[in-house]
Amino acid sequence: MAHDNALEALVEGLRRLPGVGVKSASRMAYHLLQHDRPGAQLLAQALEQAATRIRHCARCHTFTEGEVCATCLDPRRDATRLCVVETPADQAAVERTGAYKGLYFVLMGKLSPLDGIGPRDIGLATLFERATDGQVQEVILATNFTAEGEATAHVIGEALRARGLKVTRLARGVPAGSELEYVDLGTIAHALVDRR
Amino acid sequence: MAHDNALEALVEGLRRLPGVGVKSASRMAYHLLQHDRPGAQLLAQALEQAATRIRHCARCHTFTEGEVCATCLDPRRDATRLCVVETPADQAAVERTGAYKGLYFVLMGKLSPLDGIGPRDIGLATLFERATDGQVQEVILATNFTAEGEATAHVIGEALRARGLKVTRLARGVPAGSELEYVDLGTIAHALVDRR
Ligand SMILES: [Zn+2]
Ligand SMILES: [Zn+2]
Repeated sequence: MAHDNALEALVEGLRRLPGVGVKSASRMAYHLLQHDRPGAQLLAQALEQAATRIRHCARCHTFTEGEVCATCLDPRRDATRLCVVETPADQAAVERTGAYKGLYFVLMGKLSPLDGIGPRDIGLATLFERATDGQVQEVILATNFTAEGEATAHVIGEALRARGLKVTRLARGVPAGSELEYVDLGTIAHALVDRR
Repeated sequence: MAHDNALEALVEGLRRLPGVGVKSASRMAYHLLQHDRPGAQLLAQALEQAATRIRHCARCHTFTEGEVCATCLDPRRDATRLCVVETPADQAAVERTGAYKGLYFVLMGKLSPLDGIGPRDIGLATLFERATDGQVQEVILATNFTAEGEATAHVIGEALRARGLKVTRLARGVPAGSELEYVDLGTIAHALVDRR
């Protein structure tokens, strides 16, 4: 008797993706098997390579294949400014404005005591070390304007000011309660100019 | 200068999944890389194995790893009845009712002249051969109650009746315009009993 384990394994595997339930996973599996097997193999290779090759930039913590990411290595960036964001998606949102030429630190998360995510989980010690390298003159806090993002900005701001650094926050041009990734470019650009 | 090609390749790969745009793909990629690398590798293996191992059952056309699927090989199934469905998801919906003990033929599609999908694309010649094996006494048409599903049922019904077979259609208990996969079990069970 034959078993369709490869199909079940595929549906289970697809359910590991965020926001994908069993019905969506089945639809995805059928689509790939019936209409796009090259796509399935391409995705398999991309997953394998990403999972094994991608690590965190030693300077800014964002995803990179090298020891240090392209942005951190770019000599045209202004090394006196450091923008702190929660995720690479937020970093990409700031980059798309074209209004910022400094460097970044990507927290890869936010402080969230209720979920048990503390300072250690988002690499605050590394951030404090990075920010006090002697080159950085201003740290721009660009965490989301949610309760957790604000709390994260507050904790980081207090700690860095105590170390004598100038700390600014994106201006309130960004609507409260929203996530940077979904904010229009103009609003982010404006908030950068008006940072306080 | 380092490039983040593995990340871009992963986002591109995830976009091959139906219903996944660039924002969703980015979120999925970040989630896997940050929180679930084992999941990424598990999904990679599942995709690779499914894409290479899964083929179509020689008797019913559904997905299987063997030459013939477990359902077609099951001696307890009633070989005098053949239920024609559009997809494996529809077959699964009929199976879940527990009201059907016969065999299946899975079209893996439906007639759709506007999309250029004709009788050859959904294996109608194979179905006609399968249905006239001498054992099948009744063919139950369980294509969806959409315009295309109805047209597909009509074409198959005409051809099989011309070959002297008894052909029935799921009763109208299934709401018109809906897809089997999303219909409640009771409705499908009722429609099976009332088939005409
Ligand atoms: Zn970096
Ligand atoms: Zn079969």
